[in-house]
Amino acid sequence: MRYFPEPDRDLNLSDVNRVVEAAFADHGKGLVQMPPKVHITLPAGDFRTMPGYLPSLGIAGVKIVNVHPDNPKVGLPTVMALTVILDLATGRPMAILNATKLTDMRTGAAGAIAAKYLAPKKECVLGVIGTGRQAEAQVRATALELSLTQVKVWSRDPVHAEAFAARLTPLSAESQSMEKVCDCDILVTTTPSRTPIIKSEWIHAGTHINAIGADAPGKEELDPEILHRARVFVDDPAQAFHSGEINVPINKGLYQTWMIAGTLGEVVTGKRKRESKDEITIFDSTGLAIQDLAIASIAMRQASSIELPFM
Amino acid sequence: MRYFPEPDRDLNLSDVNRVVEAAFADHGKGLVQMPPKVHITLPAGDFRTMPGYLPSLGIAGVKIVNVHPDNPKVGLPTVMALTVILDLATGRPMAILNATKLTDMRTGAAGAIAAKYLAPKKECVLGVIGTGRQAEAQVRATALELSLTQVKVWSRDPVHAEAFAARLTPLSAESQSMEKVCDCDILVTTTPSRTPIIKSEWIHAGTHINAIGADAPGKEELDPEILHRARVFVDDPAQAFHSGEINVPINKGLYQTWMIAGTLGEVVTGKRKRESKDEITIFDSTGLAIQDLAIASIAMRQASSIELPFM
Repeated sequence: MRYFPEPDRDLNLSDVNRVVEAAFADHGKGLVQMPPKVHITLPAGDFRTMPGYLPSLGIAGVKIVNVHPDNPKVGLPTVMALTVILDLATGRPMAILNATKLTDMRTGAAGAIAAKYLAPKKECVLGVIGTGRQAEAQVRATALELSLTQVKVWSRDPVHAEAFAARLTPLSAESQSMEKVCDCDILVTTTPSRTPIIKSEWIHAGTHINAIGADAPGKEELDPEILHRARVFVDDPAQAFHSGEINVPINKGLYQTWMIAGTLGEVVTGKRKRESKDEITIFDSTGLAIQDLAIASIAMRQASSIELPFM
Repeated sequence: MRYFPEPDRDLNLSDVNRVVEAAFADHGKGLVQMPPKVHITLPAGDFRTMPGYLPSLGIAGVKIVNVHPDNPKVGLPTVMALTVILDLATGRPMAILNATKLTDMRTGAAGAIAAKYLAPKKECVLGVIGTGRQAEAQVRATALELSLTQVKVWSRDPVHAEAFAARLTPLSAESQSMEKVCDCDILVTTTPSRTPIIKSEWIHAGTHINAIGADAPGKEELDPEILHRARVFVDDPAQAFHSGEINVPINKGLYQTWMIAGTLGEVVTGKRKRESKDEITIFDSTGLAIQDLAIASIAMRQASSIELPFM
């Protein structure tokens, strides 16, 4: 059994996008096993258990990931993760991966793939709400799929926004008001908000939105009015209804489960697509176990590891 | 983060019984978080993911365990397991335990606790069907809770039965026919059978049965007629209906979910008990995540471990 302490190191982001895209394609074809993630509540946060099996990549395992919002106060990330990989033939545990940064990367890749298929054009202005680790992962992955002519960023703290924009060099990036950031072709929302912060009137026809921040019951970033103007694609319906951007509107009766336009897997396999350049599309990301298995499959090929006794 | 390659080494079986008993007591009081285990099917077997949180012991985590019946042909155990423990305050992965032998031991402890509370008397004749690793774990754990005046064992292969009986020294153990083994005070069934092998007419009044073998859909060891003569206690109703001894009879309409007498947790907390010395009682064991967390909590205190980088 091997332990990979830094499996994200030297990982090629284009390779990550490709393998995550392949995982979504398998999901769209019904070729994966992936029960809904299981939540356990801890005193100051929670953790989720995400088992899955991706036959086409020959990989099966479980990601275990926590969310503890107060962790930065003690110098730890809010989200930390471990992925356990089992040998397909015998079920023997064969690898354990530190999956904290892999989680950021595979989430960035899902947004990039959604933008590749659903953006209104190939040359895009990207708007980013929030400037945390996930915001950066989204920009870097998306820049590999589309030509980003400009990146507009907003943070509650303007100093963070300026620093984030500077970090994105050589991309042309600048800090702007939230309303101006929303005037873009692809809008990415990455905040932990529990009330809608994006107003419907700020979103013009043709925008694609990657709604990344809402990943637990009670979280939402978009005015529910936007959902009604848009076609909403989810990664997994059960997870999205429970904890995605649409979870609060569904619980309040402001959105119905039958209204979703389909899954990203169906988009990647061509069963669903953007129907016109004027429609608003939304990708509601909650994060799938198969994304974790997909990125693990390529990380294990190139990263260094420690051999552990297991018998 | 620490890795424990042999956390079972030097573990005191009485301590294991006590901590597993405490976990069942918490379960009976509704003080644990434990969603049903999640099954994923692999080409030659399956694996189950078992998350849980046991507040009284201050431990939370996930056991991942496979079942691959053909593994012995390649020199591997049928069942192998890994338990990941998270820090309660921050969700950080803090320990990984090789849980293969811990799984045997905590299952043995559950049977021992069931026998302690449900056996018809304190001095008992123990009958054991099957002579694998789990059979041995059951006998060793039960011998610490009750005085076993005799152990009668049956295996399909008489040579295995003789060798098993010899291994149990200083307990007085001998190989007998299946019918004679069933003439006992506590019967333990530990086979992977998919058809009932224990006939109802072999089971006399007052017997307590630990039904251990059936742990997956399609498995059963007892003539369903025995269920109707007995009061059946389960570890967890949802898991027992899905994959315990009662799963096949329920699916065939030969047993109803409302017929169960209660849970082992309710027995340990005194809410349910053996009502007379003549009644037949059954404990239907499927294995709970809280048993794995309970045994991990004491194993981590005494076992040696390897420090792994995690950041």
